[in-house]
Amino acid sequence: MRVLGVDPGLTRCGVGVVEGVAGRPLTMLGVGVVRTAADDDIGVRLVGIERGIEEWIDRFSPELVAVERVFSQHNVRTVMGTAQASAVAMLCASRRGIPVALHTPSEVKAAVTGSGRADKAQVGAMVTRILRLSAPPKPADAADALALAICHIWRAPAQNRLQQAVAQNRLQQAVAQHASAVKGRTR
Amino acid sequence: MRVLGVDPGLTRCGVGVVEGVAGRPLTMLGVGVVRTAADDDIGVRLVGIERGIEEWIDRFSPELVAVERVFSQHNVRTVMGTAQASAVAMLCASRRGIPVALHTPSEVKAAVTGSGRADKAQVGAMVTRILRLSAPPKPADAADALALAICHIWRAPAQNRLQQAVAQNRLQQAVAQHASAVKGRTR
Repeated sequence: MRVLGVDPGLTRCGVGVVEGVAGRPLTMLGVGVVRTAADDDIGVRLVGIERGIEEWIDRFSPELVAVERVFSQHNVRTVMGTAQASAVAMLCASRRGIPVALHTPSEVKAAVTGSGRADKAQVGAMVTRILRLSAPPKPADAADALALAICHIWRAPAQNRLQQAVAQNRLQQAVAQHASAVKGRTR
Repeated sequence: MRVLGVDPGLTRCGVGVVEGVAGRPLTMLGVGVVRTAADDDIGVRLVGIERGIEEWIDRFSPELVAVERVFSQHNVRTVMGTAQASAVAMLCASRRGIPVALHTPSEVKAAVTGSGRADKAQVGAMVTRILRLSAPPKPADAADALALAICHIWRAPAQNRLQQAVAQNRLQQAVAQHASAVKGRTR
């Protein structure tokens, strides 16, 4: 599976493409940063992010786009920009029918380092090792985008199993309800 | 001037078009709500908002899009959705080269009711009176979108004067700096 990871941000939006399946060595196909100028109007910056993401989707045709789930407990100004950039990334993917998955920062850190509280350096070091790169990708936003893609590929089988279990449970409940309704009628 | 006001939201995104200039009676050209289903994926919802906003821009060709400035002090979940919907509205406008203006909720309330702390009913009543409507637009998001457009039209002359003053001040400073630099060199 080929995943485009997006670490959303208005000034630096990290992007990274990883291909592979859980349990096998993963391959990095590309990594970079979409930048917009802090002194440009917000609308112009969002158009810049849109163009950048479109280019990455055009170039790598990912099967899925994994975006960092934004929380509001951090710095107020940063969070607004992050939410807006992530909206543009999700919009670009959904418009083309490409599925979007969201992962929290701690899910991503836990997936690649084993700890949900790992620092940037640790994430960078593990991304370098997992993808067999010669040096950690710079800036940190680029490494985080790759970590998101890796996290998605590794978590996907577990998530699929969970979804199947939930679906099966719903089906069993529906069958049970139907059976008891039939029983009620035939009494 | 023709302004499209957008009260951003994922479930209900208020839209309203007002035409006129400060000091003259204003006219409402259209009002409505772009809705998306709460149980749809976030990406699908953003695509729905994009389509809705595009339709309103196509239909009314506004010269400017006024969007509510989002703050993070409110409910965490709501704010994320609001920030994401506002990003899509700003993107749609900027992509077509239509200028975007942001106004805070208290600026909008103060502009139409005289108080930055007015409630929804008061805003609805004043929008009804200002635009000479037979009844307050429903839901409140639609009325808020019209209030945003009115606020922009009424504040625009003051904002233009302010921007001109700031620009003139910068120019004078630049001239003064240049003069003192020349004086320094010729000493």
